[in-house]
Amino acid sequence: MLAEEVRQKLISIVGEKNLLDSEENLVVYSYDATPNYQAMPDAVIKPRNTKEIQEIVKICNEYKVPIVPRGSGTNLCAGTCPLEGGIVLLFTYMNQILEIDEDNLTVTVQPGIITLELIQAVEAKGLFYPPDPSSMKISTIGGNINENSGGLRGLKYGVTRDYVMALEVVLPNGEVIRTGGKLAKDVAGYDFTRLMVGSEGTLGIITEAMLKLIPIPETKKTMLALFDSLEGAGQAVSAIIANKIIPATLEFLDQGTLEVVEDFAKIGLPTNVGAVLLIEQDGPMEVVDRDIEKIVKICEESEAISVQVAQSPEEGLALTTARRSALSALARKKPTTILEDATVPRSKVAEMVREINKIAKEHNVEICTFGHAGDGNLHPTCMTDARNEEEMHRVEQAFADIFAKAIELGGTITGEHGVGVMKSPYLAWKLGEEGVNAMKTLKFAFDPNNIMNPGKIFAKETKKRVVVQK
Amino acid sequence: MLAEEVRQKLISIVGEKNLLDSEENLVVYSYDATPNYQAMPDAVIKPRNTKEIQEIVKICNEYKVPIVPRGSGTNLCAGTCPLEGGIVLLFTYMNQILEIDEDNLTVTVQPGIITLELIQAVEAKGLFYPPDPSSMKISTIGGNINENSGGLRGLKYGVTRDYVMALEVVLPNGEVIRTGGKLAKDVAGYDFTRLMVGSEGTLGIITEAMLKLIPIPETKKTMLALFDSLEGAGQAVSAIIANKIIPATLEFLDQGTLEVVEDFAKIGLPTNVGAVLLIEQDGPMEVVDRDIEKIVKICEESEAISVQVAQSPEEGLALTTARRSALSALARKKPTTILEDATVPRSKVAEMVREINKIAKEHNVEICTFGHAGDGNLHPTCMTDARNEEEMHRVEQAFADIFAKAIELGGTITGEHGVGVMKSPYLAWKLGEEGVNAMKTLKFAFDPNNIMNPGKIFAKETKKRVVVQK
Repeated sequence: MLAEEVRQKLISIVGEKNLLDSEENLVVYSYDATPNYQAMPDAVIKPRNTKEIQEIVKICNEYKVPIVPRGSGTNLCAGTCPLEGGIVLLFTYMNQILEIDEDNLTVTVQPGIITLELIQAVEAKGLFYPPDPSSMKISTIGGNINENSGGLRGLKYGVTRDYVMALEVVLPNGEVIRTGGKLAKDVAGYDFTRLMVGSEGTLGIITEAMLKLIPIPETKKTMLALFDSLEGAGQAVSAIIANKIIPATLEFLDQGTLEVVEDFAKIGLPTNVGAVLLIEQDGPMEVVDRDIEKIVKICEESEAISVQVAQSPEEGLALTTARRSALSALARKKPTTILEDATVPRSKVAEMVREINKIAKEHNVEICTFGHAGDGNLHPTCMTDARNEEEMHRVEQAFADIFAKAIELGGTITGEHGVGVMKSPYLAWKLGEEGVNAMKTLKFAFDPNNIMNPGKIFAKETKKRVVVQK
Repeated sequence: MLAEEVRQKLISIVGEKNLLDSEENLVVYSYDATPNYQAMPDAVIKPRNTKEIQEIVKICNEYKVPIVPRGSGTNLCAGTCPLEGGIVLLFTYMNQILEIDEDNLTVTVQPGIITLELIQAVEAKGLFYPPDPSSMKISTIGGNINENSGGLRGLKYGVTRDYVMALEVVLPNGEVIRTGGKLAKDVAGYDFTRLMVGSEGTLGIITEAMLKLIPIPETKKTMLALFDSLEGAGQAVSAIIANKIIPATLEFLDQGTLEVVEDFAKIGLPTNVGAVLLIEQDGPMEVVDRDIEKIVKICEESEAISVQVAQSPEEGLALTTARRSALSALARKKPTTILEDATVPRSKVAEMVREINKIAKEHNVEICTFGHAGDGNLHPTCMTDARNEEEMHRVEQAFADIFAKAIELGGTITGEHGVGVMKSPYLAWKLGEEGVNAMKTLKFAFDPNNIMNPGKIFAKETKKRVVVQK
């Protein structure tokens, strides 16, 4: 519970109605989209502008009250779970598009805007904001920036980081800084813009962002290739890239995922094949036609059982929508769904999926895998039941093995979901103790009182690494 | 001079022949490509590998000896001038390509490799490394990364930062960290990769880098459009972008630059026009043809006096080579050439060039301007004589006014050259004192003894800002 003095000071900033601390309100913000993590905040606060955030931060820094900035809470790393209490800070009032600049191809927004709303607003002007996390219908841009969200278009277009040009940030000491500008080139000092991107709310509060836009691709085509085996699909992925084609989307679903997705979406996907690639190319008409033609040929040469190009934008949309529904579809199967995002170099995707299957078998847990084959970002998803302690232990072991394997193959523990609480015990596996130390040095230089989203990224203890047996 | 104890310890690491401290050697490394800055180092050292660099850093940190990492010294911000003495660290032995991975589209290099050598090596495999600073024939990748170098292809393809995927870095405390990987998506912890990019050797020593490659564009076309006035050229730039075309290169030369370049390159450029745009598009043949056709039409509508599409790759190359020679050409005119890179939002280019001309007139100095119109990165270049103190004072005043104007227009003091010593007194104009403080917090957390390239980025004093009179 907040000390009454602190509570009154916060109310004097935002007004009575914007500080919520009834039991019902606190419960709502005690968890996010990540299963199995819950902790009660002391209050929920809804500031109306940067100035109010600045004052809130100063109070919290003085009284050492944790602050957890939260968009829509769609993250999958328990990144917005208020582990150490304190206040959950919402951007309910700060959800506007401030400017779309068609001359300089930028959009300036407040952090609370929904990703899809932003995408639609710029598309209405013939412009394109590529990052498209699966949660984009409900996620906010502020959350996307804090997590450096990826999405299906990452292979060709990059991730959120690649589109953030400028930020306004309230630092833990209450100072406001503005980074970057409407500038494709700017080397005046350290790259604080990108330091903030993906920092998971641990270094400050992003209060405004300017994002880069590009012209919207003229056209788009979608296709589906079915394979008997993982190897065939993996080989096709490699061959597409080796042929110097970078598709906009190059998604992979294994047999298990496919079955569940079809059961959910009912669009006539085959469910008796080993693996599916969902491929999309966009760009000028001639190029899209030519690339899709080449990709069809490559898939056939990689022994695809069947290759099917969507005959209309609607048919294409149905396919990508089905893919986007993978998590929801899988979530119907069991009480608890844990979706991970171990990521490997593109050339290792088939090997990694095979290893995931082996690991699942070893630990006797049910894991389906889908994900962004083009950029090696896989989502092994475990269907389980959090109430079954014994099973949960095996699930945890399986994921630890998966992380270890990903790193062994030159990969990482998280491609686009963030470290949060969930993966913090594994961070040193990827970065080494020296790497984690360097990050701690940075964190504590900026936030000596550890008020910004405490308990995230840095674990109290690194998990003991068990070497995966071949 | 180094204490004999330190000198001996360094020699024990690299061997006698790799520590140079004769007067002649020290003089050679007392300056870089930036006019008017010189300071003697105490020694020049040539380590052979990361391990040796690690040991050197530990010694220097213990004895508080400054380290200035230096590639080819082509920077234009006095970034490698050993202002506070200490050792200049060279990458003479660390100049290899370690791997070109065609499956994952990456190249792994040591920092000492020449940029153009790298570009040619990957092009031989049908791959493309876009960043192309004008100094690329002699600059090193290590230098490019430390300065976050741009180039002519920045508008469409981004800058060095956008191509660095992983780094090995020796931190000021002597610890070695490895960031990133062969991963298009990786959000395991803070983005140290991009924090190091553009940090100008002040946070650590980059000892290895993995860079992203893309498929080489199928074809390329070059064209030249001549305009009576700046306004016409500026209008054409805006119209090209408004038509949703992003050319690979969109360069601008004013009348003064044009005259000097033609005198130098003798390729038949007209010298009696107000402004020239050099435009290049690359990509699939059909798209290039279509875009160039549209751009021709846009230039004509913007009242270009003449528009000429290069009829052969050789003719196109001659045009871009002429543009690349702008600095060399200008440098022949007067004993001292000061090339700056004030940068503004693309939509403000014409206005900025007009202001530069006005400022030059007010201070009675000779400034020609050329640069990357597409990304607003301008190079106002002053031809002067460093021996004339009174004139140099006026030159300095003029550049201060130019920086102030750039910031007023939403721009920055440096687009691609870095802050170094030269622009450090102006950094707070762009970032505010809060922004500079945040950077200092970071710097001193990592380098409490201030051994890494001291005197760069952070000035002892911020210049008093004179408001530009309209």
